Amino acid sequence: MLGVLSADAAVLGNPDLCRSIFDDTIRVLGLSKIGEVYHGFPGAGFTAVVCLTESHVSIHTWPEFGKATFDVFLSNFERDNSDKVRRFFNAVVTGLQATIVSQQEISR
Amino acid sequence: MLGVLSADAAVLGNPDLCRSIFDDTIRVLGLSKIGEVYHGFPGAGFTAVVCLTESHVSIHTWPEFGKATFDVFLSNFERDNSDKVRRFFNAVVTGLQATIVSQQEISR
Repeated sequence: MLGVLSADAAVLGNPDLCRSIFDDTIRVLGLSKIGEVYHGFPGAGFTAVVCLTESHVSIHTWPEFGKATFDVFLSNFERDNSDKVRRFFNAVVTGLQATIVSQQEISR
Repeated sequence: MLGVLSADAAVLGNPDLCRSIFDDTIRVLGLSKIGEVYHGFPGAGFTAVVCLTESHVSIHTWPEFGKATFDVFLSNFERDNSDKVRRFFNAVVTGLQATIVSQQEISR
């Protein structure tokens, strides 16, 4: 699932809030984190990528535009994770109090 | 750019080769690495995500299927990076001696 979100600049400049939402969602959905990168750009947004055994989740924020790109990729090789992708995506939209500018569900 | 690649199992089980190709390509294209995760699954494939100031690159490999998903996302907010996306994608395909099973270029 590839999305563009719109949210408050304060939220889009707060990687700690994002980390809390990601970690809660990973726990609720029973996913397994194997590594992560959180990187804040001084006076601007942040980038976060969380690697899961099931693939990865990423967000890049631009508070100055009120926008973020947010992607959830879960592998379907071993089981169908499509429902978890949607639940992860929606949990983060809710947690960030964001609105969805665009959303594309991609299978391959 | 979202891709599915086919390559030799030995290549798909070798994160060091992938790291070398990623790092070379980042340098050649003048991109900036801000963090990375490389995680090998014992007796299986690996996951690698490299965060760039311009977004991120990810690969997840399944040597047992001879397949990998490989994505290059570069932001176009500050400049058009479409050409660098294609060059990055092609450099990795060449480096891994892979064939492209599918390839989708997505703009948002």
